[in-house]
Amino acid sequence: MNNRLYFKDNKRLYEDKKRLFSKIEKERTHIGYYNLPKQNINYILDFADSFDKSIDTIVVLGIGGSSLGAKAIYEFLKPMEELKRKLIFFETTDPINISNTLKEIDISKTHFLVISKSGGTVETISIFKYLYALNQNSNLYTFITDRGSNLEKFAKEIESKVFYLPDNIGGRFSVLSVVGLIPLALCDIDIKLLLKGADEISNSFFNDGKFKDILLNKAIFYAKNQNRYNINCLFAYSQTLQYFTEWYVQLWGESLGKKQRHSSFNVGLTPIGLIGPKDQHSFLQLIMEGTRDKSITFIKLEKFEHQLNIPNLSLKHLESLDILNGVSFHQLLTMQSDSIIEALTNEQDIPLDEILLPCVDAKSIGALIYYYELLTSLVGELLDIDTYNQPGVEAGKIILKKKLENL
Amino acid sequence: MNNRLYFKDNKRLYEDKKRLFSKIEKERTHIGYYNLPKQNINYILDFADSFDKSIDTIVVLGIGGSSLGAKAIYEFLKPMEELKRKLIFFETTDPINISNTLKEIDISKTHFLVISKSGGTVETISIFKYLYALNQNSNLYTFITDRGSNLEKFAKEIESKVFYLPDNIGGRFSVLSVVGLIPLALCDIDIKLLLKGADEISNSFFNDGKFKDILLNKAIFYAKNQNRYNINCLFAYSQTLQYFTEWYVQLWGESLGKKQRHSSFNVGLTPIGLIGPKDQHSFLQLIMEGTRDKSITFIKLEKFEHQLNIPNLSLKHLESLDILNGVSFHQLLTMQSDSIIEALTNEQDIPLDEILLPCVDAKSIGALIYYYELLTSLVGELLDIDTYNQPGVEAGKIILKKKLENL
Repeated sequence: MNNRLYFKDNKRLYEDKKRLFSKIEKERTHIGYYNLPKQNINYILDFADSFDKSIDTIVVLGIGGSSLGAKAIYEFLKPMEELKRKLIFFETTDPINISNTLKEIDISKTHFLVISKSGGTVETISIFKYLYALNQNSNLYTFITDRGSNLEKFAKEIESKVFYLPDNIGGRFSVLSVVGLIPLALCDIDIKLLLKGADEISNSFFNDGKFKDILLNKAIFYAKNQNRYNINCLFAYSQTLQYFTEWYVQLWGESLGKKQRHSSFNVGLTPIGLIGPKDQHSFLQLIMEGTRDKSITFIKLEKFEHQLNIPNLSLKHLESLDILNGVSFHQLLTMQSDSIIEALTNEQDIPLDEILLPCVDAKSIGALIYYYELLTSLVGELLDIDTYNQPGVEAGKIILKKKLENL
Repeated sequence: MNNRLYFKDNKRLYEDKKRLFSKIEKERTHIGYYNLPKQNINYILDFADSFDKSIDTIVVLGIGGSSLGAKAIYEFLKPMEELKRKLIFFETTDPINISNTLKEIDISKTHFLVISKSGGTVETISIFKYLYALNQNSNLYTFITDRGSNLEKFAKEIESKVFYLPDNIGGRFSVLSVVGLIPLALCDIDIKLLLKGADEISNSFFNDGKFKDILLNKAIFYAKNQNRYNINCLFAYSQTLQYFTEWYVQLWGESLGKKQRHSSFNVGLTPIGLIGPKDQHSFLQLIMEGTRDKSITFIKLEKFEHQLNIPNLSLKHLESLDILNGVSFHQLLTMQSDSIIEALTNEQDIPLDEILLPCVDAKSIGALIYYYELLTSLVGELLDIDTYNQPGVEAGKIILKKKLENL
């Protein structure tokens, strides 16, 4: 993976960078996600290897951090790899969705993963109750939750298999733990390679590799300019990264939208996910001519396996577009993103950078995920917030509980 | 349709409203989209009625304004109605996508709609060339474009059917013209009812109905607070509105991100689409505790046809969630959005409003579309911009053309 920053490196930041790096090194001793790339995954591989071969569909019951990460990786790899099993997500209480998702499922070939860190997520438990009322065979279900949660106790009661989240890992930082690895391994996705990708970024950052300086620079730039550039767009030039942008939106928004520790002021940076070239025809005008409140990170794939070319065909009256003839769609896609980057660079006051992913494989997405987790931690530290909690969602939960009790 | 504003009506705005309304009345005489609800659609209905019954798939080749509107309506209605034909969209030059979409298609049962207002959209023509090289039977294709475009000339050359966009309708305001109506009518979607929904909002706004005051109030609030609340979130509590939010993002972003007419300053409002309850577990924390730079519009469905209930099932150790028992998923969904609205209202400085759609039908979505088109026109007028052009996307196109010529 490569990352080029088009905004200026500030040489005077030497002390800032040193301080920030040492804070993150300290954080690494107690925040769990940092060490996931080096975890032992043999028990997960064994579980997947010995899994019932007649099961061809895995259904994840989970929402937010319990589904977005696995979905991002699965949807990234699915168009390119022959996967052993299909992954389906139940992530809403919307009745239209529940009915339609149920229609897709052949229960005799399906296994359900019930994923809830706290064990009491209203959406997940509601859907689980619905399914469990239909089929109480406990072999149909595997549970992933915190050790000691009520969901664990229930799972033990019905003698289902349970996996535990490691300590001190928040939902949105849990994709490289059992939360993501179990569903992905069951689809035969190479989770070793996924962690290898993450580990390369980790090594590079913590052992003076190129990503140390890149990430420190980028984080300091975002934090210093938080009031001017309060919106951070991720513009991915591959449809396969659609769900990755959704994962990014949760990670960035829920981590960085907080009251400050020492002032209790509201701060935050707003994430937006875009897909090229589609969103050139939607959001680009706003970036180019709207208020200068956005930074843009482009993501490009260096290699596509699908070699499709625009044919050498001249259409009468459309001869001006013969310049497209013989060009591969990948070449066109790359030229499209390069053209937009050039046009935006000419504007001078739109901060840009560019991430290059070698290809569509587990290693690339593992690296990209860890890169964004690190960047989020760095910016969170600079904003003087707790990156890892989400107290703002509690108020709504308390009101909902009262409404339910009053029914 | 109903719309409750939770921000304060300012009585002193009487003169502002009067001025704004008269400007829009003037605009209505030359901007084409305003009058689409009252257009004659008999020729579209005849075309759909006499269409080859053996065709079961319609493929739209179009991007941005040529696809987002039809997709929003189709995906809204699809889960609830038995539609006659399937609609597939080719809207990217991404080779992974093109290959995979091609695999879904049985060419002997498929018809292609090539939609490009200018007739020279690079993405659309590239994909068209690819398909046309595979199959040059001109009966396979229908074209929708501006009268006089090179694409029209080509279509006439190969003797394919052509439909024309009415005058003075930009791509992103074209969903209620042939651009949206032809693909939707071919799927047997009730386009008369769609226009009826739009017409009700139009009548209400232009003839002193309730939406006149609502829309004027809302537009003035957004424009007056453009620097404080520069981000406008649409939080829809139904998965069926997923693609509607994408349509909204294009309409709002591309219309309102502009240089001002009289100052050439960059102005703009940034749209964000959210789906509940999923995004309660993603974006809500940022709304609740992040910088106070966002307004939120909730969309709720008043009636769901799918009556699914959470069963009366008590799970050992999870008894605290028995409060969910017997509740319908629709009830839960409504209570979830109400709880979030209550929690956000308590914060005082987050501007909220709530749109209630009667049910999932063509009339509801027609009304919602016209409501947002009007709101966009109103805010654009107040921001002193040209709401209907998109000059910012030209720079990238020119660079791309040079790159292609230099290959």
